[in-house]
Amino acid sequence: MPQKLCIGVAGLGTVGSGLVEMLIKNHDDILRRTGREIVIKTAAVHDLSKKRELPAGVALTSDVMSLADDPDIQIVVELMGGTKAARHLVMRAIENGKSVVTANKALLAEHGREIFALAQKKNVAIGYEASVAGAIPIIQTLKNSLAGNHITSVMGILNGTSNYILSEMNQHGFDFPTALREAQELGLAEADPSLDIDGQDAAHKLTLLIRLAWGRNYPFSRLAVEGIRGLNPLDIKFAREFGCRIKLIGQAREVDGKIEAGVFPALMHHTLLLARVNGAYNAVRVEGNAVGSLFLHGLGAGRRPTASAVLGDLLALARRSAENGSGDNTGFVDPLPDAEILPSEEAVSPWYVRATVRDTPGVLRDIAAVFTEEDISFAQILQKAKENDRVPLIFMTHETTGRAIHTAVRRLEQSGTLLVPATCFRILGSCGDEAEEI
Amino acid sequence: MPQKLCIGVAGLGTVGSGLVEMLIKNHDDILRRTGREIVIKTAAVHDLSKKRELPAGVALTSDVMSLADDPDIQIVVELMGGTKAARHLVMRAIENGKSVVTANKALLAEHGREIFALAQKKNVAIGYEASVAGAIPIIQTLKNSLAGNHITSVMGILNGTSNYILSEMNQHGFDFPTALREAQELGLAEADPSLDIDGQDAAHKLTLLIRLAWGRNYPFSRLAVEGIRGLNPLDIKFAREFGCRIKLIGQAREVDGKIEAGVFPALMHHTLLLARVNGAYNAVRVEGNAVGSLFLHGLGAGRRPTASAVLGDLLALARRSAENGSGDNTGFVDPLPDAEILPSEEAVSPWYVRATVRDTPGVLRDIAAVFTEEDISFAQILQKAKENDRVPLIFMTHETTGRAIHTAVRRLEQSGTLLVPATCFRILGSCGDEAEEI
Repeated sequence: MPQKLCIGVAGLGTVGSGLVEMLIKNHDDILRRTGREIVIKTAAVHDLSKKRELPAGVALTSDVMSLADDPDIQIVVELMGGTKAARHLVMRAIENGKSVVTANKALLAEHGREIFALAQKKNVAIGYEASVAGAIPIIQTLKNSLAGNHITSVMGILNGTSNYILSEMNQHGFDFPTALREAQELGLAEADPSLDIDGQDAAHKLTLLIRLAWGRNYPFSRLAVEGIRGLNPLDIKFAREFGCRIKLIGQAREVDGKIEAGVFPALMHHTLLLARVNGAYNAVRVEGNAVGSLFLHGLGAGRRPTASAVLGDLLALARRSAENGSGDNTGFVDPLPDAEILPSEEAVSPWYVRATVRDTPGVLRDIAAVFTEEDISFAQILQKAKENDRVPLIFMTHETTGRAIHTAVRRLEQSGTLLVPATCFRILGSCGDEAEEI
Repeated sequence: MPQKLCIGVAGLGTVGSGLVEMLIKNHDDILRRTGREIVIKTAAVHDLSKKRELPAGVALTSDVMSLADDPDIQIVVELMGGTKAARHLVMRAIENGKSVVTANKALLAEHGREIFALAQKKNVAIGYEASVAGAIPIIQTLKNSLAGNHITSVMGILNGTSNYILSEMNQHGFDFPTALREAQELGLAEADPSLDIDGQDAAHKLTLLIRLAWGRNYPFSRLAVEGIRGLNPLDIKFAREFGCRIKLIGQAREVDGKIEAGVFPALMHHTLLLARVNGAYNAVRVEGNAVGSLFLHGLGAGRRPTASAVLGDLLALARRSAENGSGDNTGFVDPLPDAEILPSEEAVSPWYVRATVRDTPGVLRDIAAVFTEEDISFAQILQKAKENDRVPLIFMTHETTGRAIHTAVRRLEQSGTLLVPATCFRILGSCGDEAEEI
């Protein structure tokens, strides 16, 4: 009979309590799969007095660092979030030769380099499937299943809160504040929703995906990040007239050996699977030179889905006898070099531009002249009926750089042609044969 | 410097040549990920005289069993297909302590029990990601990522050829022979397409998925299998009028501790992601008590996508030093018991029934009487205009068993109420919140 696997859990919030629930509920399945009992020896919590449903024998402590120092604990499961205390805990656990399972994307995006380096030195495993896209096994897929590919792009809907807001705006015509309020009432958005709606959360996850796809460190601080705060419902409506949806996308692709990456709202044609991801679901599309296009879709957050990912990592460690993981946590043998970065402004794609102009002769001529000078050509133009003497003009361009678009728009703003700042979004994703059936 | 990994490849057809191509093209990526050179020592082929693009140093042989006996070869990659010679090769390789990577679903569906038993005894690994749904990492996902779940259902589009034919019928209104001929001209269907269009190929794959999801052997010979041969375009048209598509589905679900499974054409509402899988793509949807609903979509066949899956397995073995795999290839520790089977006829779902009747009074009354006696109630009824005195009647029922449906229909056929045999399909998949955005 193999030994029990003894773990310490830091944090019994949503994910931690989901983990406890699933360990109890799926006890027999887990035993059949691993041959080992997984036992929580200690859980670290802020509030020791709170009532909790725990299996008999679980000790509670408010001293989280004790998990890292307890010689009985083989794996530390870090579910507390944040980057400060979590970093101390994880580094100490590794230092003491323990493997770590974590759902903490911020920690690994901002301190991944030192954490993975120490884990390699100590030859312990870091399981972090739960840190990106919840229950979707994208870490496993990039690290193992697609290891024989040269990856060319990774794009995804990595934040369920923003996607829920965008879905509600799209399906019910809500404005941004209404959709945000609804998400908050449903518990899908925090009281301070900044991390989600301003794109930081998606950016943390994208940083991890870049590391896995290309084996390069992309400094989180250099990632171009734009959120959906205050998105105008008009743009969702006009996008639909072109057969598109607006989604908050995290995207990275390889262009001439450099990595171009960012988080931003973008238009996608409705026949792409990514454009149809509904509500709080997440999805990731990976393209590689062998796999072609692979699309994974599932619940990106929540008690049980996140616990599903944490358990996947835990059980993998239980099977390979946990005490010695492999230091090979990035999917690459050697320490990772930095990514060569292609700034987003230099990247090429089609663009959507919504301009608001006066209803006078010559305006379209002036705009066309500036766009032509910036070497931008139009694929489609839509002029809508005027309102209070203001005319909305929507341009869908052929491929061009963000720099060209922003220069043209700035020039038109300065010359007074535009009555209010223009709205500019990239258009992503060739439909190709991944397009779904009609 | 770690040792080279020396492999033998049985078969240099589509997949084998794709493997060779990707090993060359992605050489540097693979080396970064594993730290080891992967070297093909010998490839076994039928025709030694045929010109092939091979890396220098690869020996060719027509004696496939020599791969299993060569002490230099650490892993045998079986890409020859079929169940006879392939079985001998795989068993001998395992007997000799070699791990095996295979894309052979028929082999593992029909002889999996003995192969996995011997592999466990010899403590070698069997990598078979390529055997189900091509490039989609569904084996890895069920075996590892979702290991902490209790799985409740697995359903998928597991055969690209049939899905292509159905897509063409749906999108262009082709009849079955036309769509099949087109698929054959494009090389997507064999000259003898039986394995694909009669559902056997999907059934082989489903057998493997059941084993992975529940750790049970489901005897392949007992699987209910129905294909799409001769599907009437009328049904595709009528299904659309109810917002549904017809897909060839492999489905297994747990009902009261028993497994209900089968391959059959079924209606699915168009808002389900599975209903929108286009052309030669495959997709699998897994439901578990932690993960919720997880949907994976990708290329189900072809040179490079299948090579992607083979390479994923090979690289995993290269990383864990290959010589000793783990015998834990099913995802479960102990040998697997047989599944308790719930016959498909006893399983409950809504049904679609198309009846062809004479245009005389009392027909609907007679049909309704028989259905009521069989305890079947209707959710929707559609009567179409008559043609040559024949009236098509389409019924969408509430949940009922296949047994009830088939009994009712047989009674109506025997009483002469139906002019031709009725067409009956199950309707699958609650839309729930997995439904895509509109």
